[in-house]
Formats: sequence, structure tokens, C-alpha cells
Amino acid sequence: MALEIERKFLVATDGWKKHTLVKKVPIEQGYFSTGEKAPVIRIRVTNEQAFMTIKSTQRGMTRKEFEYEIPLVDGEELIKACWRPTIKKTRHYIVDNFDQLWEIDIFRGVNKGLVLAEIELESEKQPVIIPEWLGREVTNDDRYRNVALGSTKVPKE
Amino acid sequence: MALEIERKFLVATDGWKKHTLVKKVPIEQGYFSTGEKAPVIRIRVTNEQAFMTIKSTQRGMTRKEFEYEIPLVDGEELIKACWRPTIKKTRHYIVDNFDQLWEIDIFRGVNKGLVLAEIELESEKQPVIIPEWLGREVTNDDRYRNVALGSTKVPKE
Repeated sequence: MALEIERKFLVATDGWKKHTLVKKVPIEQGYFSTGEKAPVIRIRVTNEQAFMTIKSTQRGMTRKEFEYEIPLVDGEELIKACWRPTIKKTRHYIVDNFDQLWEIDIFRGVNKGLVLAEIELESEKQPVIIPEWLGREVTNDDRYRNVALGSTKVPKE
Repeated sequence: MALEIERKFLVATDGWKKHTLVKKVPIEQGYFSTGEKAPVIRIRVTNEQAFMTIKSTQRGMTRKEFEYEIPLVDGEELIKACWRPTIKKTRHYIVDNFDQLWEIDIFRGVNKGLVLAEIELESEKQPVIIPEWLGREVTNDDRYRNVALGSTKVPKE
């Protein structure tokens, strides 16, 4: 079990593209449970790995997370059993000028074109230097939870 | 992913106790999802191991099963988040006179005193020699699914 502490932001401009791209990963993820009453149970499949993740129901910056790598063939089978539609996005890992690692997700599907940035923190109080290409913070905005983004289009800001 | 093919029976007498006891394991298991619409997601904790298991929604003898061992500390934490009440039972692995391995579950909780026997098969057509201590087969009786036995008392037969 790990504590997942993260902040999430809209991305206002393409300014992030000037930074070092560490890695670019296509992701498909689906859910068995959305965490309304029970924990969120997520299957995530990339081009070479699969994970099963259980996240506690708390909202906000910090959540308990149990993540296990599973065989890719299992992941591909399990994601077929997840709620439709699944979420499809391409994740870009970039390092900004202040050595902060950002995950920039470009969504496909119902939220095609949506771009979100996440940063993982060691503690809730860890300072984050906000790059100029970031938009509004949506850490506490339920509409931007991944589990919601697969099926519900968010308004363009 | 494995195919789980099993048959389940009531236990009519204590006759099984004369057979070789291979192992006796206290089990607590809980669920995040009961498989009504989504797959069954089960956390099982014994005295020394923990597992997360996803089972497909099919009823009857054969189900797809994805089982992963997880750290015991994770299992103990996750089972707290499962639906109440969890299932508590002691599993006895015995080998009968025909070298068949049986799992004899003695339940605690709402079904305290209930005893069920399960046998895992290689195929649905594999013959089973029915020992004289077995009662009625309940493979297709939904009341005897584990996910139901935690909360609903079955009538004594």
C-alpha cells in the first residue's frame, strides 16, 4: 500500500511540449467499481504492462493506493470486462525546468482533446512551482476524476 | 487467467474426518463487487497469505478466475474496506480413499456450523467418485455462492 498524493491541473497552452519528454505511453484503463461506495478498482493496460489498482474512496489530494502489476494477457482480458466506455489517453512524462516530473494526459474518446497535467508529491505540503502553461487546478473537481472522464464530457474552459 | 472448474456439495456427516488432513487454514474473505453486473472481486486472507481474485460472472461449474497473491499487510488493510460482514471459515484440505482432494469449509458467522465440500476439476466431464459423507450437490444453487453466504443464512438441510 502506498499513499498517492497528487495534484491535477488543466493545461492551458502547448508550452509543456518544449520540455524534455521522458516517455510517452498509450494507456487504456477501465473500472469495475467507481468508488461511490466501494473503493475504485482500476485495470490499466499500456503497450507493454498491465496493472490492477485499488484506490480508497477519499477525495482530494491524498488517497491510499494498492497497485499490482499483472500479466499483460490478464490485463487485456480483464479490461474487456470493465465498464464501457474505457478511458483512452496518451501519457507524456516530461521534466520541467525545475526538475519537476509532470504527467501530461491527452485524452481520446468522449473527452477527445482534453489535456490534463498531474504531479505526484511526497506530501500535501510539498511546494509546486506552477509552470506558465498550466491552467486551473482541478484536484478537487470531481468532474476531472478519471473514473468520470470516460463517460462524461467536461465543458471546454 | 485460469479456468476454475469446481463442484460444491453439502456435507451430510462427519465421515470426512477419517481421511488424511493435508492442511487446515483459517480464511477470511470479503468482496468489493458481488458479480451481479461486474465480476466478483474478492480479497482472501489466511494466516500467512493474501490474495486478490477476480472471477467472471458466469454461474455454474466453470468460471474464469484471475488470482494474484498480494502482500499480507495489503490484504489485511483491503479486507477492512470490503462489504460487511466478511466470510470467515476454516478450510480443511483432505484426500479421500480415491486420491481426490476435497476442500471442506466449516463456516463461522451468520452460517455458523454450515459445512461445504468443494472439489476442483480439470474439466466439467471429469468423473467424481462421491464419498458417502457428501450430501446434495449445490454447484448451481446461488444461495451457496460464497458471496451470498456472508450475509444470508441458508436453511438447514
